Amino acid sequence: MTNAPIFERMALIGIGLIGSSLAQAARQRGLVKEIAISTRSEATLRRAEELGLGDSYSVDAAVAVEGADLVILCVPVGANEAIAKWIAPALKKGAILTDAGSTKGSVVAQVAPHVPEGVHFIPGHPIAGTEQSGPDAGFPTLFDQRWCILTPPENTDPDALEKLKAFWQGCGSDVDLMDPKHHDLVLAIVSHLPHVIAYNIVGTADDLEAVTKSEVIKYSASGFRDFTRLAASDPIMWRDVCLNNKDAILEMLARFSEDLSALQRAIRWGDGDKLFEMFTRTRSIRRSIIEAGQETDAPDFGRHSGD
Amino acid sequence: MTNAPIFERMALIGIGLIGSSLAQAARQRGLVKEIAISTRSEATLRRAEELGLGDSYSVDAAVAVEGADLVILCVPVGANEAIAKWIAPALKKGAILTDAGSTKGSVVAQVAPHVPEGVHFIPGHPIAGTEQSGPDAGFPTLFDQRWCILTPPENTDPDALEKLKAFWQGCGSDVDLMDPKHHDLVLAIVSHLPHVIAYNIVGTADDLEAVTKSEVIKYSASGFRDFTRLAASDPIMWRDVCLNNKDAILEMLARFSEDLSALQRAIRWGDGDKLFEMFTRTRSIRRSIIEAGQETDAPDFGRHSGD
Ligand SMILES: NC(=O)c1ccc[n+]([C@@H]2O[C@H](COP(=O)([O-])OP(=O)(O)OC[C@H]3O[C@@H](n4cnc5c(N)ncnc54)[C@H](OP(=O)(O)O)[C@@H]3O)[C@@H](O)[C@H]2O)c1
Ligand SMILES: NC(=O)c1ccc[n+]([C@@H]2O[C@H](COP(=O)([O-])OP(=O)(O)OC[C@H]3O[C@@H](n4cnc5c(N)ncnc54)[C@H](OP(=O)(O)O)[C@@H]3O)[C@@H](O)[C@H]2O)c1
Repeated sequence: MTNAPIFERMALIGIGLIGSSLAQAARQRGLVKEIAISTRSEATLRRAEELGLGDSYSVDAAVAVEGADLVILCVPVGANEAIAKWIAPALKKGAILTDAGSTKGSVVAQVAPHVPEGVHFIPGHPIAGTEQSGPDAGFPTLFDQRWCILTPPENTDPDALEKLKAFWQGCGSDVDLMDPKHHDLVLAIVSHLPHVIAYNIVGTADDLEAVTKSEVIKYSASGFRDFTRLAASDPIMWRDVCLNNKDAILEMLARFSEDLSALQRAIRWGDGDKLFEMFTRTRSIRRSIIEAGQETDAPDFGRHSGD
Repeated sequence: MTNAPIFERMALIGIGLIGSSLAQAARQRGLVKEIAISTRSEATLRRAEELGLGDSYSVDAAVAVEGADLVILCVPVGANEAIAKWIAPALKKGAILTDAGSTKGSVVAQVAPHVPEGVHFIPGHPIAGTEQSGPDAGFPTLFDQRWCILTPPENTDPDALEKLKAFWQGCGSDVDLMDPKHHDLVLAIVSHLPHVIAYNIVGTADDLEAVTKSEVIKYSASGFRDFTRLAASDPIMWRDVCLNNKDAILEMLARFSEDLSALQRAIRWGDGDKLFEMFTRTRSIRRSIIEAGQETDAPDFGRHSGD
């Protein structure tokens, strides 16, 4: 693309899957002039440098944000508050401060109090990812055809919001605006519950004595392996999500368990009509997801296409 | 392949995903000389003929099995008994009768009593499939690098067993032997529970009022869409599986629910250490599944590779 850059200097705090993908997307599409990268560990920082993800590198987040007009926190949500405190004094007036965290209510509660006057704080969450972590897992097309949810506080500066929207659109995403509470409820069902359930079922299988681990592995193509993808996601990220979106996740878990009891009863009673009905109404949603461009229409996620 | 055919005439009763894939694999690899196809409906039979899946076609299963030395039932497990009664008088002496059903104890109970003297009944279950159904969904490589479980009764004729093993190996699969009860327990955790849970979570999402269906669809790439694949599977097949492997599925559901209660408690109490531990031990199994050749090692099931 030959568009003029939207930002002069982007600072990425955290350079894992999301930070690395943002660096590559922004660079490839000319969205920013300069990329400053900061991460906690020397090892990850060095790796980011080897991959050539940025223009400058520092373990000091305050150094990275200096002079930046766009600062994106790409760390597990439990780490946001400490970083906000750390960088607050170094933030440039007029800068946009945003994040990529999977929960939004908590980020608002933990970051907003530390944001200095004159800095535009607009939380965000790209609805895109994989089960892998770290700078090597990033790729520039991660956000293509995906949604990014922004949760601008009331009275957000309209120009700042427009610029941030343009940035995400430049990364290939469509942007939706939402309030943080609703975001957390929606994500609890579409993302947090699925991950929690996947972790749980993989744990259950792991604990069995009557069925060996080798049997689980050998025959996993019959369904189980699908769950192992989500259950291979980063444990720190998901611990933090569970700690920071507790109420909504517990609510969804309660509903899930209620529904599961009904299904269990239908199995116990051999109620074939009820089972047939329950297993029929779930079909159409996949079709809609495919039509919305959010899923491949190849059978088996296209796994066989490479055979 | 240029091997001599293993069977003279293979009769497939049912020509959906599994029957169609078997027809194509057997043809492509020269495993049988002749393929006789039978299915319940005229429409499916016609479609099978259009696809050129066999050499002869009949809605009368007894006609299809006449003269066949290999008969494979490829219908939902609830339909096996009626078909067994129907074809029993027409089965050739010395023929092998097998099936592809996802439950095995029930098949033994429902089919074995009808098998005439001199016919070798060896139940089977290929651990391979997709979420799609019908003859168009079949493809010849479905069974490649997958396992097929056979549950030969005591005193099974060794030559018959060897021939059936050779057939499945010719289809690309490795063969394991197991007793039906253990098969049903293993499959309850690796396949039946995952499907039941997937159906359930998709149902829960469908019922929510606070989150719209359009939101679920838009943001499904954050995890939910993974579950919609299994939940798009054939409702009749899965109704029959639940009705025919009730005890093992209920046992796995009970264990799953117990584990979920513990996870729920950890979330409620904000027990980060416990959550971290639970989310960590589930990672290695995916690696093992990939190393065992039962899963792609591409991130996100390789969905992005086509981008
Ligand atoms: N993964 C997804 O699919 C996905 C999707 C959408 C949103 N998100 C959100 O995006 C954020 C980043 O996720 P990710 O997948 O990019 O994670 P990741 O690949 O694990 O990378 C995490 C980054 O954060 C740093 N970090 C970790 N803990 C930290 C701490 N306590 N203090 C300071 N820095 C810390 C890491 O630094 P070191 O390596 O130097 O230790 C690394 O640079 C999370 O909030 C997550 O909820 C993730
Ligand atoms: N799908 C999988 O992933 C998978 C994997 C391993 C094993 N299996 C097992 O393989 C078997 C076949 O599954 P599939 O996926 O091939 O199913 P499918 O694509 O839905 O095809 C089912 C076939 O069975 C016929 N049929 C359905 N109900 C019948 C009834 N009541 N009486 C007689 N015929 C009936 C259908 O006939 P019409 O179309 O003519 O009505 C069709 O030919 C099942 O036992 C299943 O448990 C499936």
